[in-house]
Amino acid sequence: MSQFDNVSVLKKANVYFDGKVSSRTVVFADGSTKTLGFMQPGEFEFATSQKELMELNGGSWQVLLPGESEWQTMQAGESFTVDANVSFQVKVSEFADYCCSYS
Amino acid sequence: MSQFDNVSVLKKANVYFDGKVSSRTVVFADGSTKTLGFMQPGEFEFATSQKELMELNGGSWQVLLPGESEWQTMQAGESFTVDANVSFQVKVSEFADYCCSYS
Repeated sequence: MSQFDNVSVLKKANVYFDGKVSSRTVVFADGSTKTLGFMQPGEFEFATSQKELMELNGGSWQVLLPGESEWQTMQAGESFTVDANVSFQVKVSEFADYCCSYS
Repeated sequence: MSQFDNVSVLKKANVYFDGKVSSRTVVFADGSTKTLGFMQPGEFEFATSQKELMELNGGSWQVLLPGESEWQTMQAGESFTVDANVSFQVKVSEFADYCCSYS
């Protein structure tokens, strides 16, 4: 699926880490939301409040998942999930174009 | 209007200037498109192929419009238009969250 149809998109971006990470909120007909995000080079720690599916649309990232000690390198098309109320780390060397789904 | 309703959004970002500028394409029911974009600090030159309305949703930018010699500083809520087939320059010191409409 290359696009989301019949959705609403908030005009204002969500801005994190001084803008090195930004995202757009997409609202679906059933009220569920996803964010389409973009990360600049850097190292970022995120805390979850819901379970998240993080899909990499373009670019690459390294991910340190909760409780793990080894970074995983991922390319476009790869994804990972994290539970609610955990923290995970992402390192980006070029850019990362991603989609985050909440459940 | 804080959101666009009943639209499609492309999952993959448009990436410019090594990711310092990225945008998301929004397609409306009538087939027209807008992009929701985000600029990191830097100085960027853009060439237009259509007339563009550039609205600043958040952050700030300085703009040098075609044929002008003075940079204009704009804040969130301000906008400018440029004709097709021209170039304009944008300087960003913090970030710029924008919407570009084509006609």
